[in-house]
Amino acid sequence: MGGDKAPDEIVAGAIQAAKELGAPVVLVGDPDRLPDTGGLDVIAASEVVGMADDPAAGVRRKKDSSIVRAAEAVRDGRASAMVSAGNTGAAMAAALLRMGRLSGVPRPAIATPIPVPGSSPTVLLDAGANADCEPGWLLQFAQMGATFATARYGIGRPRVALLSIGEEATKGNALVKEAHALLAASGLNFIGNVEGRDLMSDAADVVVTDGFTGNVALKSLEGALRFLVGAVIGAIGTSDETRKAGDVLLPALAPMAEQLDPDATGGAMLLGVKGVCIISHGSSSARAVVNAIRVASEMVDGELVARLSEAVRA
Amino acid sequence: MGGDKAPDEIVAGAIQAAKELGAPVVLVGDPDRLPDTGGLDVIAASEVVGMADDPAAGVRRKKDSSIVRAAEAVRDGRASAMVSAGNTGAAMAAALLRMGRLSGVPRPAIATPIPVPGSSPTVLLDAGANADCEPGWLLQFAQMGATFATARYGIGRPRVALLSIGEEATKGNALVKEAHALLAASGLNFIGNVEGRDLMSDAADVVVTDGFTGNVALKSLEGALRFLVGAVIGAIGTSDETRKAGDVLLPALAPMAEQLDPDATGGAMLLGVKGVCIISHGSSSARAVVNAIRVASEMVDGELVARLSEAVRA
Repeated sequence: MGGDKAPDEIVAGAIQAAKELGAPVVLVGDPDRLPDTGGLDVIAASEVVGMADDPAAGVRRKKDSSIVRAAEAVRDGRASAMVSAGNTGAAMAAALLRMGRLSGVPRPAIATPIPVPGSSPTVLLDAGANADCEPGWLLQFAQMGATFATARYGIGRPRVALLSIGEEATKGNALVKEAHALLAASGLNFIGNVEGRDLMSDAADVVVTDGFTGNVALKSLEGALRFLVGAVIGAIGTSDETRKAGDVLLPALAPMAEQLDPDATGGAMLLGVKGVCIISHGSSSARAVVNAIRVASEMVDGELVARLSEAVRA
Repeated sequence: MGGDKAPDEIVAGAIQAAKELGAPVVLVGDPDRLPDTGGLDVIAASEVVGMADDPAAGVRRKKDSSIVRAAEAVRDGRASAMVSAGNTGAAMAAALLRMGRLSGVPRPAIATPIPVPGSSPTVLLDAGANADCEPGWLLQFAQMGATFATARYGIGRPRVALLSIGEEATKGNALVKEAHALLAASGLNFIGNVEGRDLMSDAADVVVTDGFTGNVALKSLEGALRFLVGAVIGAIGTSDETRKAGDVLLPALAPMAEQLDPDATGGAMLLGVKGVCIISHGSSSARAVVNAIRVASEMVDGELVARLSEAVRA
């Protein structure tokens, strides 16, 4: 029921995923408000935590909401994974409260893939779950992020970096300096600090930061890309001549546009809870839902949660 | 002597600025290593704090470096402002140690203009001087940033915002939440929180943040822009046909490219020291130096330092 295009696009994506992947997809929502589900099972939920609702309060109060029921379905073994395009905070709160945290994980983190042309994405975490962090949590984010990068992108020994404001170990705030020491002493393939400009490059496979900085960085990237795409589209629309030039150029830009399309990435993942939890962006189309379900299915088959549990115990 | 293109481009810019602006420009550097100065005065300095030097240690050890001598020239009244394209940390340290801080300013901050198409830039501060901040410092950054936005861009009552991860006052880390309360109670035109995606938009005139987050955000913007500009140039270079299309489109993109050009902005400014201190980017061309000197001259004429001193006492 969550997402700007819910329920129609979400249901359409679920139906398509069930067909394409052969995965048994279960919908969670209000049966009276759902379109034709194409024969997919529905777990009934009468309430919705909306985009404007306070996430934690919404999840506590709306016990029969689709997001809470979805998390319960994973907890109870009726589903292997949950996918949501709704309120990010609510999805996180529902997963935390209903599925629970992995043993030894004080703070689950949101891992967001940032597209990198010609390479696997950079996994950035925490992308917004924990605004204030302790150095030890960043070490754990690194362990979980590396495990995720291996499971999701097949990277044998992911290069882990710390987001900072200079490459030297002495650069950064107090949190980063302490986390740097912990990461350097860990068994991870820690390559040191990277900067904001390295996020869309192949500099590292996993970039670790606190949830405040991670979210600001992610939205800064988004803002800059939106700005420049808008400027290019504006330039193309200037005259008939530029419109013709645009028709020639746009196909050459298509591969990059495809890589930047958030619908293609499969969404962000909450790492550190007892179950696979994928958080797609609010404007997810049916295609985004198919990709999210594909990733969810792969992460279940690859036993991501068991591997994460092992990684944080190491 | 500082900057990737020093001393040639720096000296060329200084000569041009003296001509264009009629401002008496003084060069600081090693007379034996400077090209023809076109008759400009030179304050001799035998050492250079390089890009690779530790800023604080470099400034302490190299007492006859160009950056230290430049700051001393402002302190001693031989110059009204300093402009450097060298090691940012060294320029900051030299200004702090030689000019000193304004009374009541515990931490000067770097204010960086972020280009916004069709509008005056967004002034972001702190862009990297103070990695760890206290809430009261952010209030002072806001006071100084607003004063700078008025002096530099003629904005009567600048809209001041706090960089966070959601618009609501309850969103953010502990620092931001406390700073939010201080800003809301200040006499400033505080419009609340903005997000990373708002930095290149007209959402606010001044955006306040700690130096760690500010630097990460700035470099994330840079990285995204560089990525996309590279992608467009790559697409144009695909074939003869796309190259022709590029020839048609590029003129339409020129106004935006001009706005994004860091050489055009005049550089960042260190606010809170007893003097005008402009820090241009490392790759500054002669044109960047002319613009930096123009801004320095305007800020001196507009009595920026006295106004900052007044603003932080309010």
